[in-house]
Amino acid sequence: MPSTLVIHGPNLNMLGQRERRIYGLTTLTELNAALSAAALGLNWEIEIMQSNSEGEIVTAIQDALGSHDCIIINPGAYTHYSIAIRDAIAACGVPTIEVHLTNIYQREEFRHKSVVAPVSVGQVSGFGPYGYIMALNAANQLLGATANTQS
Amino acid sequence: MPSTLVIHGPNLNMLGQRERRIYGLTTLTELNAALSAAALGLNWEIEIMQSNSEGEIVTAIQDALGSHDCIIINPGAYTHYSIAIRDAIAACGVPTIEVHLTNIYQREEFRHKSVVAPVSVGQVSGFGPYGYIMALNAANQLLGATANTQS
Amino acid sequence: MPSTLVIHGPNLNMLGQRERRIYGLTTLTELNAALSAAALGLNWEIEIMQSNSEGEIVTAIQDALGSHDCIIINPGAYTHYSIAIRDAIAACGVPTIEVHLTNIYQREEFRHKSVVAPVSVGQVSGFGPYGYIMALNAANQLLGATANTQS
Amino acid sequence: MPSTLVIHGPNLNMLGQRERRIYGLTTLTELNAALSAAALGLNWEIEIMQSNSEGEIVTAIQDALGSHDCIIINPGAYTHYSIAIRDAIAACGVPTIEVHLTNIYQREEFRHKSVVAPVSVGQVSGFGPYGYIMALNAANQLLGATANTQS
Amino acid sequence: MPSTLVIHGPNLNMLGQRERRIYGLTTLTELNAALSAAALGLNWEIEIMQSNSEGEIVTAIQDALGSHDCIIINPGAYTHYSIAIRDAIAACGVPTIEVHLTNIYQREEFRHKSVVAPVSVGQVSGFGPYGYIMALNAANQLLGATANTQS
Amino acid sequence: MPSTLVIHGPNLNMLGQRERRIYGLTTLTELNAALSAAALGLNWEIEIMQSNSEGEIVTAIQDALGSHDCIIINPGAYTHYSIAIRDAIAACGVPTIEVHLTNIYQREEFRHKSVVAPVSVGQVSGFGPYGYIMALNAANQLLGATANTQS
Amino acid sequence: MPSTLVIHGPNLNMLGQRERRIYGLTTLTELNAALSAAALGLNWEIEIMQSNSEGEIVTAIQDALGSHDCIIINPGAYTHYSIAIRDAIAACGVPTIEVHLTNIYQREEFRHKSVVAPVSVGQVSGFGPYGYIMALNAANQLLGATANTQS
Amino acid sequence: MPSTLVIHGPNLNMLGQRERRIYGLTTLTELNAALSAAALGLNWEIEIMQSNSEGEIVTAIQDALGSHDCIIINPGAYTHYSIAIRDAIAACGVPTIEVHLTNIYQREEFRHKSVVAPVSVGQVSGFGPYGYIMALNAANQLLGATANTQS
Amino acid sequence: MPSTLVIHGPNLNMLGQRERRIYGLTTLTELNAALSAAALGLNWEIEIMQSNSEGEIVTAIQDALGSHDCIIINPGAYTHYSIAIRDAIAACGVPTIEVHLTNIYQREEFRHKSVVAPVSVGQVSGFGPYGYIMALNAANQLLGATANTQS
Amino acid sequence: MPSTLVIHGPNLNMLGQRERRIYGLTTLTELNAALSAAALGLNWEIEIMQSNSEGEIVTAIQDALGSHDCIIINPGAYTHYSIAIRDAIAACGVPTIEVHLTNIYQREEFRHKSVVAPVSVGQVSGFGPYGYIMALNAANQLLGATANTQS
Amino acid sequence: MPSTLVIHGPNLNMLGQRERRIYGLTTLTELNAALSAAALGLNWEIEIMQSNSEGEIVTAIQDALGSHDCIIINPGAYTHYSIAIRDAIAACGVPTIEVHLTNIYQREEFRHKSVVAPVSVGQVSGFGPYGYIMALNAANQLLGATANTQS
Amino acid sequence: MPSTLVIHGPNLNMLGQRERRIYGLTTLTELNAALSAAALGLNWEIEIMQSNSEGEIVTAIQDALGSHDCIIINPGAYTHYSIAIRDAIAACGVPTIEVHLTNIYQREEFRHKSVVAPVSVGQVSGFGPYGYIMALNAANQLLGATANTQS
Repeated sequence: MPSTLVIHGPNLNMLGQRERRIYGLTTLTELNAALSAAALGLNWEIEIMQSNSEGEIVTAIQDALGSHDCIIINPGAYTHYSIAIRDAIAACGVPTIEVHLTNIYQREEFRHKSVVAPVSVGQVSGFGPYGYIMALNAANQLLGATANTQS
Repeated sequence: MPSTLVIHGPNLNMLGQRERRIYGLTTLTELNAALSAAALGLNWEIEIMQSNSEGEIVTAIQDALGSHDCIIINPGAYTHYSIAIRDAIAACGVPTIEVHLTNIYQREEFRHKSVVAPVSVGQVSGFGPYGYIMALNAANQLLGATANTQS
Repeated sequence: MPSTLVIHGPNLNMLGQRERRIYGLTTLTELNAALSAAALGLNWEIEIMQSNSEGEIVTAIQDALGSHDCIIINPGAYTHYSIAIRDAIAACGVPTIEVHLTNIYQREEFRHKSVVAPVSVGQVSGFGPYGYIMALNAANQLLGATANTQS
Repeated sequence: MPSTLVIHGPNLNMLGQRERRIYGLTTLTELNAALSAAALGLNWEIEIMQSNSEGEIVTAIQDALGSHDCIIINPGAYTHYSIAIRDAIAACGVPTIEVHLTNIYQREEFRHKSVVAPVSVGQVSGFGPYGYIMALNAANQLLGATANTQS
Repeated sequence: MPSTLVIHGPNLNMLGQRERRIYGLTTLTELNAALSAAALGLNWEIEIMQSNSEGEIVTAIQDALGSHDCIIINPGAYTHYSIAIRDAIAACGVPTIEVHLTNIYQREEFRHKSVVAPVSVGQVSGFGPYGYIMALNAANQLLGATANTQS
Repeated sequence: MPSTLVIHGPNLNMLGQRERRIYGLTTLTELNAALSAAALGLNWEIEIMQSNSEGEIVTAIQDALGSHDCIIINPGAYTHYSIAIRDAIAACGVPTIEVHLTNIYQREEFRHKSVVAPVSVGQVSGFGPYGYIMALNAANQLLGATANTQS
Repeated sequence: MPSTLVIHGPNLNMLGQRERRIYGLTTLTELNAALSAAALGLNWEIEIMQSNSEGEIVTAIQDALGSHDCIIINPGAYTHYSIAIRDAIAACGVPTIEVHLTNIYQREEFRHKSVVAPVSVGQVSGFGPYGYIMALNAANQLLGATANTQS
Repeated sequence: MPSTLVIHGPNLNMLGQRERRIYGLTTLTELNAALSAAALGLNWEIEIMQSNSEGEIVTAIQDALGSHDCIIINPGAYTHYSIAIRDAIAACGVPTIEVHLTNIYQREEFRHKSVVAPVSVGQVSGFGPYGYIMALNAANQLLGATANTQS
Repeated sequence: MPSTLVIHGPNLNMLGQRERRIYGLTTLTELNAALSAAALGLNWEIEIMQSNSEGEIVTAIQDALGSHDCIIINPGAYTHYSIAIRDAIAACGVPTIEVHLTNIYQREEFRHKSVVAPVSVGQVSGFGPYGYIMALNAANQLLGATANTQS
Repeated sequence: MPSTLVIHGPNLNMLGQRERRIYGLTTLTELNAALSAAALGLNWEIEIMQSNSEGEIVTAIQDALGSHDCIIINPGAYTHYSIAIRDAIAACGVPTIEVHLTNIYQREEFRHKSVVAPVSVGQVSGFGPYGYIMALNAANQLLGATANTQS
Repeated sequence: MPSTLVIHGPNLNMLGQRERRIYGLTTLTELNAALSAAALGLNWEIEIMQSNSEGEIVTAIQDALGSHDCIIINPGAYTHYSIAIRDAIAACGVPTIEVHLTNIYQREEFRHKSVVAPVSVGQVSGFGPYGYIMALNAANQLLGATANTQS
Repeated sequence: MPSTLVIHGPNLNMLGQRERRIYGLTTLTELNAALSAAALGLNWEIEIMQSNSEGEIVTAIQDALGSHDCIIINPGAYTHYSIAIRDAIAACGVPTIEVHLTNIYQREEFRHKSVVAPVSVGQVSGFGPYGYIMALNAANQLLGATANTQS
């Protein structure tokens, strides 16, 4: 039974409470519930964390090595400058999918650049909470594909 | 029954024939077959076109107004400079999802910039042919969500 | 009796149908009617075309050599990157006036740059459909002025 | 009876006397006479000033509020850096049309940028003294259009 | 009785101990005492914290929502790159005033840019410890003004 | 009895009359009255001027040498390019505080740069008319501090 | 008997008719005749096309796969921005030689950059029509060399 | 008897009074006296002005046409941004020599750029007050040389 | 007996486990053992820490003041953006030597810039684990040199 | 009998000995032999030199004036920064053809810029040693063309 | 017995004679003596040269091939622009260590960039003359390590 | 009797022979004769050299220490990139005056930057051969001034 780690970066705990015009009405709790249900449907184990701390996120990524088959990460603001998170993803080697709730290419110039993207498998941006489900489906597809390749 | 237009930009007709290390082994015919099957499964109508011509793509996008509920586009090389395609998407107003087979953020610097992204609903990048299925699912979700909002 | 070619670039066929807050309510048909009437008033022949295709526009410009005394062009999105259109204007040598419906300097940064301006006689920007009439008047004045100079 | 203020910026008093290869043979006196005649023909009041002083131009623009329906301005060299003139146009709120004798996009790189353009209605560039007549016609059209809109 | 949260960013605990030529002789304890006295004088509650950790600062800002009427923040080095802190300020929505002990525009080029400024009410820079008092006074004025507006 | 010169740069005479959404409802006369009252309360002499002319502002700054203990300046648009004003501040040597009504870091990119800041004591930005009072208080504090240092 | 495809990009059909000071007196017909003669001399088959359309050029390049041993291309204005043509060259995999009539490094800054060069075997620039003959000779040499390598 | 106009730009009236470490001890009066003496020795008429106003300097340059054979100008801060002064020099056509007291290339980056230099005969920078004498000698030499060329 | 603090930044705990082609086979434990042995040989006390948290590293640097004579730091990813770490080094004033396992100038462009270098004594880059020994030797030499200078 | 000078820049003496994957197997001696043979076949005199010294290359170019009809130069690394070599080519006025063994546009960014190209007749890049033969043929063609033009 | 070539670039012969505040008091003769002693201690042969000529340094590097096991180079000013020296290091293939007396990252912006670093094994910067000893030790370590790897 | 070294950089030996439209008709021999005469008139010893080699110029500058009181240098093309020459001027410490025959600010962009200017006393640009005389006069004035200062 495959397993994924889902990481919500800084300020995502505020989801659905403020700036709803940008981020929508869904709370993080609701999002996580929907995501867990989807994981169940796909027969995946899922572990979800949220942290405002760059260092904690780095450590969580490192710890995924050996315990998870995939990382789904929304690095929030760290997307744009945390080379430490980038290096952690590269160092742990677990396939990682980058998710953004909003279409980051419609927002401020500095949000167009992701330092994490070059070490991720792929990126899903602009589909709101559903983007996490898309990422999970992609992980499922990816693992199947990898399995096929290896067999 | 909702309908989507799928647009494959320049050189995507070469898919699976050359540069397989970058773009994979799947041919465009195979990709389209899988995509049509998925549409059928979701009860969507689907129209698929490929063109090497920027002007033809612009016209196809304009024609989607009134005949399609969604556009799924992989603008290929035009992603990076075709303001004409960008303007067509904005002008026709049909919700558009941008797909890239490869993770464009792992490739040459000039491929990191999409002039189409700011007028798209969202972007899916790096998941190979499966990215089109993800876009279709997102379109389905989006239309449901919109319907809910409007009712 | 002098003659002008009027070229409407990509997406201008959508005029008055969508994005009216930016481009206004006048349709391209209405704009062309007003322009033809103005040409009649000035005793000018007028030929009008619209194309979404960069190549077609290039060819139309080349064909103006020997058949028209002036080109009035709104290159739309191609304004900002079509060096092919720029080269065509320089190559055919017919005096060319650049028109933009909107004030391009009030819009996105990338619309501030016209690669066509340096090979045009002049530029009219921000006066809506009336800008074409201004360009026609300028062409009329220009030809008179040139005639005076040559006599 | 509508009224316009025409502002000639620095060094335009030298018109027709030097650098004729760039700016032409017409003197400022001749240009102003032609412009006054055109205003008479359109039944407009016209006030014309020239100044080398940025501060005087700022004050003149401020004073147009309440006394003129339109400003036609050729800010000369100040076009490229006078944010004070830009702010004055925005502050007084009188519709302003920017005119340049030469095609500024054919000249030095630093002349391609107008800090005034983003707060102007539109820009006319490259038609010599006739550009002022074009601007006056545009003002006339604009006022009519606005009147129509408001009625 | 209104309440403010004061956040001292990284290395501000070293104040008055080292680099006195740049940051002056006052220690953080002395600064906080003066600030508390000023708050008392204005009849404000005040909570003061210092942290070297970006994540802790993000969390503190989030927690201000519902418990404080204003945040006064000197983000120290994080001023220049912490989009996470910027996003926290925008997410919590509590009016925030940015303070810098030194005039950051007299220092290294990289200190001239504040990523926090665009989401703050205003910025006070260069007045040493007294800048915090100025910020507190401004908060007091601001709340009064807001109150007036709302009544 | 200490004395300050207050300089309002170009277009600040329009305050409260236009663009109220950006600059607020207070007129310059009202602002000056409040500022004079505050000076009286602090036992300061105050001289206030407004000018649209860069040269006049330069001269006023020079004249402050020997007659004022502090300059409070809102250079308006000149903030962003007047090296002449910068040099005047450096040349006269009177401590200068820079004030901006709006938070210039929330506005157009070109307003983020102050050429005056590096020669000022400090900067207050975003607090509306109250920012001048803050500057006056800072001047008072500064003079006291300087006096203490010198004694 | 080896075969080459020669592609003339936009506006090259105007060769020898206008802008002779830049591009010389030779017409495209004369150039093609000389090139065909040279091909005959080297015992090469040759197919020559000219198009103003980016899409047509992309398709022509794709079609060279399996029918030609070499492509000689002068992409004209498309040299500087057509990533679609670049991708077509990379996708079809036929060795491609880039030719420019003029020395593009002596002309406008924007002509110094070729997006096609990094996927071409080599570039010949500045030798007028003779540059095509040089490219043909190089293709001949290259094929010989490749043959030698393979045998 | 040839004649020169000497223009001292903004803040040069402060010479010798403040910032002596940068600009030296000589006052403007002393500098002018030395310069007048040198002019006398060379049998030149000399007119000297100082202004803080860009507009006044522009007008003074225009007025030199017909009354002076040479302009020696130290544009002070305007060196770096006054395109109006640049245009005045180009418009009046009187040979102009640019002088700077300090070596502007040893100072802040923004002082390295002179917008006036491209329209001046030459530049003398870094020799203090003696630089004006050098400029006068150069003017004398230049006029002799020009006379020789013309005879 | 002199003492050094050795700080390993984020992801260095993964050393020798992953990305061995870039970082080599030595684990952090082995590296630390070799470093401790070298310290013993030089008669230095040594304290070694690793952290993924920027804030913890900042605090550790501050704490070195008074307890260590030298800091040897490999800031990992933080090298390229942590101004907080830079400021901590400057604030604590303990001589600091920067070490990188790899030659950062052979890697991605963004790794070429160290914000820490300008406040360090020196930098050792590209020598693998041995670089730490070099840094320790340099610290030893430095302290000797400083001692000599002070005596 | 026409004559050419062939200049091989720095490190070209290492040709065929090292970095064969980039520069190929041919040694400079072999290349020169092939080139001499080709010259003989075209009835040209040829002089060949190699130098690692920028100054020697400058002098050699200067000496070509009066003794050679053409220069064929591969400036090696100096291509990218030696303005001295550029100026020598412009100063001596002998038609110069620039050759590069590799396609410099496929290599590091800094190799894409040739400071020599703007003063050369043309450039041949990417054809290995055969590029020199192409240059010689072009020189032969050029001289014939020039002769024709002059007769 | 392994052998190293030590290359001192331009102006290093002035060491200890001038600019002692930047480069210290040690003369090149003293530095070389210390370095030779260290080499003796490690049982290495050492050859030391100094040259102001880029070409001579290029040639010396080339000559190291076959005669030295390592190059220790301080390229002085050439560090920042000599692509010729960079290419020589890459061409000869002898492992090269780059040394700088000063911490180049604390000096002028243009000294932060080393064009030599990407082809060197590693860089030592900021440790004064001792940096050469560090480089020698690293070479010794490197050779041992390489030997181990190869056996 | 004071002494100056005059250094002519690369290609200045071609003076008066070629590119006369840019550099004038005077040969280097004539220029040197006039300069020697001027030195005689001022009672200065003078030594003049010309070299195309950067290394020779560096050495010449170093050798001026102890034998000359001033260096007058026209670094030619090396002006724009030779940090080695810059460092030599800084290292030898002899006051250096930079001369350019042409006004380098009227020429190509890359000639506007002098890396030598920041270490020179001053710069004279645009006065042709007479610029050297101006520099000599300045040196004479400078030495007198320095003498006065020291006495």
